[in-house]
Amino acid sequence: MQTYTVALGDRAYPIHIGTNLLSNAELVIPHLVQKRVALVTNEVVAPYYLDTVRGALENAGVKVVPVILPDGEQFKNWETLNTVYDQLLAARCERGTTIIALGGGVVGDISGFAAATYQRGAPFIQMPTTLLAQVDSSIGGKTAINHPAGKNMIGAFYQPQLVISDMRTLLTLPDRELKAGLAEIIKHGLISDAIFFEWLEENITRILARDMEALAHAVLRSCEIKGAVVVRDERELGERALLNFGHTFGHAIENGMGYGVWLHGEAVAAGMSLASDLSAQLGMLGAPAAQRIKKLLLRAGLPIEVEGISPTKMRQLMSLDKKSRDGNLRFILLERLGSAVIRADIPPEALDRTLACLA
Amino acid sequence: MQTYTVALGDRAYPIHIGTNLLSNAELVIPHLVQKRVALVTNEVVAPYYLDTVRGALENAGVKVVPVILPDGEQFKNWETLNTVYDQLLAARCERGTTIIALGGGVVGDISGFAAATYQRGAPFIQMPTTLLAQVDSSIGGKTAINHPAGKNMIGAFYQPQLVISDMRTLLTLPDRELKAGLAEIIKHGLISDAIFFEWLEENITRILARDMEALAHAVLRSCEIKGAVVVRDERELGERALLNFGHTFGHAIENGMGYGVWLHGEAVAAGMSLASDLSAQLGMLGAPAAQRIKKLLLRAGLPIEVEGISPTKMRQLMSLDKKSRDGNLRFILLERLGSAVIRADIPPEALDRTLACLA
Repeated sequence: MQTYTVALGDRAYPIHIGTNLLSNAELVIPHLVQKRVALVTNEVVAPYYLDTVRGALENAGVKVVPVILPDGEQFKNWETLNTVYDQLLAARCERGTTIIALGGGVVGDISGFAAATYQRGAPFIQMPTTLLAQVDSSIGGKTAINHPAGKNMIGAFYQPQLVISDMRTLLTLPDRELKAGLAEIIKHGLISDAIFFEWLEENITRILARDMEALAHAVLRSCEIKGAVVVRDERELGERALLNFGHTFGHAIENGMGYGVWLHGEAVAAGMSLASDLSAQLGMLGAPAAQRIKKLLLRAGLPIEVEGISPTKMRQLMSLDKKSRDGNLRFILLERLGSAVIRADIPPEALDRTLACLA
Repeated sequence: MQTYTVALGDRAYPIHIGTNLLSNAELVIPHLVQKRVALVTNEVVAPYYLDTVRGALENAGVKVVPVILPDGEQFKNWETLNTVYDQLLAARCERGTTIIALGGGVVGDISGFAAATYQRGAPFIQMPTTLLAQVDSSIGGKTAINHPAGKNMIGAFYQPQLVISDMRTLLTLPDRELKAGLAEIIKHGLISDAIFFEWLEENITRILARDMEALAHAVLRSCEIKGAVVVRDERELGERALLNFGHTFGHAIENGMGYGVWLHGEAVAAGMSLASDLSAQLGMLGAPAAQRIKKLLLRAGLPIEVEGISPTKMRQLMSLDKKSRDGNLRFILLERLGSAVIRADIPPEALDRTLACLA
C-alpha cells in the first residue's frame, strides 16, 4: 500500500492506494467520530463490494446503514440526493455519523454533497471503485449534483477524511469505464508532467491489460499531480482551473449528447482533442505534439471526434460553463506537453476554426 | 451607523447597524466580485424595500437580478430553493455573482444555502429586515432548508461577506414578529450577560415602542454576544451549542405545532421557559430567577406555555435534534442569569417533571 497525503492544513487527508484495502477496517476506524456509518453505493457496485466493506466494518463493531442508489449519471440529480437524505434521517443518522461513498464518480459526488449538507456537514470517506473516481473525482473535495441547465451546477467544496483506492476494484470495471478513467490520467500528464505522459505512451498496453502495478503507479502519480494543484488552490480561484483542461469542451459535449450517453472521460478525451487543436491554432502547441496527444487517446480507446453537435450549439452549451467570468469564456490550453495555461482572450476566428470540425 | 466585525480570520465580515442603510450602495460595492447581484427577497418584503435596494445598486452601475420567493417558514424547503437555482441559472448568474438576501430568516437561510451551493459557492450578503434575522440568523453563517423529518436538516456553514441591518425596516415589521425577535435577544442576555438582561428588563417598553436607539443597542449587543461565540466555535463543535438555549424544546414545539403555525421566536420563548424550569428542577437556577425570565418573556408578549403536544410526542420530536450525540439528547441549561452550560446527563425524572406541564 502506498499513501499520498493531500496537505490541506487542518483538513489534510490520506489517500491509500493498494490491493485488498476494502476489507481492512483498520484503515477506517481511526477516522470515525462515532461507531456508525452510512455506506452509500449503487446497485451495480453493491453486489461486488458492499458485503466486503460492510462485513469488515461490522466485525470491527461499527454499525452500518447501507444506502443503495440507482446507477448512472442521469441519476446525479436532486431526486436521488433527496432519497439519500430521506434514508439518513429515517436511520437517525447524526452529524457525527460518517458517510462513506463506495462507487464511482456519481456515487462520490452525490454522497459528498450529501455529507457536506446533511445537518450542515457530516464526516465523509471516499472508497472509489472506478479508475475515473480514483484519479479524479475522489481527490480535492469537489462535490455536486447536476441541474437540467448544466452539469455540477449545485455543489460544495467539501474534503473527505480519507480516501481508499483499492486497485482490485478495477478488475471488475467494464473496459469502457477503464478507458474513460484513462482520459483524466492522460490529462494529468498533459497539464503538468511530460515525463508521466511519456511513461503513459510506453505503458498504455500494460494499463489496458489491468496490470496492478502499472495501474497503481498511474493512480498514485495522478493523485500527486492533482493533489498538489488542489493544495495550492483549493477553491479554484486560479491554478486549479488547469485541471479542467478539455473540460470546457467536454462538459458541453456531455451535456449536448445528453447526460449518460457519453461517459465523462470520453467527453473529456474529445474535449482535450479540441483543446489541443485550439492550442495549435493559436501557435502555442506544435502540430507534432497535438498528434501525439490524439494518438495516445486513440490507443487508450477514447474518442477524439464529436458528431451531432453543431458549432453554434457547442458555443451555446459552453457559455454555461462555471469557469466563465463576467461572460467571458475561459479556456485551458497547452503551451507544450506538460504545461497548461488559462486564457480568456481567445480570438473568435481561432475558436471558429477549431469548432469547424464538428458535424 | 455602528459596525461590529465578526473576527473569523480570512472570513471576517462587518455587520453595519443603523438607519437608512439600504439605500447606501457604497456599503455594498467594495464587497462585490463583479458588478452583478441576485437580490433575493419575498413577496411581503419586496413592496417595501426591493426598489430601494435595487435602485441604489443600479444607480451605482450594478446589474440586479431580482428573485422573489413566497413568504413563510412553510416555503423553506427544497422546492423553493430549486426555484432560486432555476432563476440564477436562467439569468446566467456566475460563481462571481453576489447573492443578496433581503428579508427575514427564511429568505436569509434559503439564499445563504443557495449561495453556499450555487456553482459550489457564490459570494453572499445579508440585509436582514426582521428583528429575528438581525439578532440571530444573519450572524454566524448557518444556512439551511427544512426537511419533512426536521427543521434545518439540510444546510451548510457559509459566512456572508457583509451584513447590513437597517433599523428602519423594523418600523414596518408586524408586532408579532418584533416580539418573536425579542425572544432571541433575551436569550443572548440569559446565556452570557446578566447586565444586558437587566437592561432589557428596564427597556422592554422602549423596544416594543420601536425606539430606534433602544433597538439599535439591543441588536448591536446581540451581534456582539453571538459573534463572540461564533468566533470561538464556528462549526458548533462545543460552545456554540449554548446559543441553542431553549431550542431543543423550541424546535420540537415548532415541528409539533406544524411549521408556520408558531413563529420560531415564539417556540423558542416557550422552549426557554421549559429549559428554565428544567434548570430549576435540577437545582441549577433559583426559582426567583426562573420567575424573572418568564416575567420578561410575558412582558415581551411571548408565550411561555404550550398546548397540544403531549410529553411523549415532545420526547419523540426532540430525539431528532441535530445536537444529539450517539443518541443522547443534550440540553442547554442555565446555571444563573447570564451563564449557560451544555448537559447530556439529564435524569429522566427531571425531564418528566418539566414535561408534565404540557397538555
